[in-house]
Amino acid sequence: MNPIIDFYFDYSSPYGYLASERIEAIAMSNNHRVVWHPVLLGAVFKITGQSPLTEAPLKGDYSIMDFARSAREHGLNYQHPNTFPIATIAACRATLWMRDNADASIAGKTTEFVHLVFRAYYAEGRDITDTSVLAAIAISMGIDSAAMLAALGEPSIKDALRSEVETAIEIGVFGSPMMIVNGEKFWGNDRLEQLDRWLQSGGW
Amino acid sequence: MNPIIDFYFDYSSPYGYLASERIEAIAMSNNHRVVWHPVLLGAVFKITGQSPLTEAPLKGDYSIMDFARSAREHGLNYQHPNTFPIATIAACRATLWMRDNADASIAGKTTEFVHLVFRAYYAEGRDITDTSVLAAIAISMGIDSAAMLAALGEPSIKDALRSEVETAIEIGVFGSPMMIVNGEKFWGNDRLEQLDRWLQSGGW
Repeated sequence: MNPIIDFYFDYSSPYGYLASERIEAIAMSNNHRVVWHPVLLGAVFKITGQSPLTEAPLKGDYSIMDFARSAREHGLNYQHPNTFPIATIAACRATLWMRDNADASIAGKTTEFVHLVFRAYYAEGRDITDTSVLAAIAISMGIDSAAMLAALGEPSIKDALRSEVETAIEIGVFGSPMMIVNGEKFWGNDRLEQLDRWLQSGGW
Repeated sequence: MNPIIDFYFDYSSPYGYLASERIEAIAMSNNHRVVWHPVLLGAVFKITGQSPLTEAPLKGDYSIMDFARSAREHGLNYQHPNTFPIATIAACRATLWMRDNADASIAGKTTEFVHLVFRAYYAEGRDITDTSVLAAIAISMGIDSAAMLAALGEPSIKDALRSEVETAIEIGVFGSPMMIVNGEKFWGNDRLEQLDRWLQSGGW
């Protein structure tokens, strides 16, 4: 048994944000750890033919209400962004640069970075498509922001994100958040409790 | 406070079936009662532009796995039907004929009928588009099946279903199951726990 929760998400996914705030407690209480996989839902949606949730008639209004209600239940800050959805390519690349960094002191701060980027967008109304916002977050964490910004344009980081998205589609990731434990998929913020029960019981 | 859970569902919705098996216990423990609202998701999907879940690339395979996994968790029988989705118009009309029947001994059996129709389709592999199957269920419950079958073609019952679907769309029902309590909507089998917490706490 591999004690890892692979957590696939797009920064442009409110349910990804809400789940990111609770997944670590679930992982920890079940002796698992979280591996973050930022992906671009836009690329996934091209395959699945989906469109952003908030743009669907009827479902869109419900969703916007539900983001806030689900946040309130768990005491999380949530302000639906004025600009939504957004292109999260820079934020995804920055996250992969950190996660896969040879410097363990950088890689070790990935979780903190994921939280700060998500909160910047959903709780603080900041524009995370703006690389200067990502740089400011890096600086606040003691990360070399110039190195991070330089990495965003590097072929190796571009390839890393492309590969991350391709792999996600190959294994059947079609939404955010998608949590995978030993090949078992759990889709959606509202599956955190079921995932928790699955880990506690060893599955059914 | 109106102690009613309005439960909107399509018989062609596996998550509707799974939720129908658990909603009454939640209602009862919170001193609420369930009112059944059979609707035609096909008509709703024309408005929302959705297509059946199981037909979506990637998402479809996940869904079929998930129907069975979610059923197993709660000890419910589930066999994904060979023919899916189906047109549930006859089953919906029969349900409304019972629910709105002037004869209280018929109306009082609506809940049992809903369960038997759902189980016929998802647990017993029976074809609920076949009115003789609906008639057999009625007979097993001591319901006058000839009266029920005659009602299926009556303008008043046709109108009742049309009206039920129109009202559902008007109030924003876009999927199955959708549970509404005092105007608060909860969409999905995976929201039963949240609905339960909402009722217990009085909301948040």
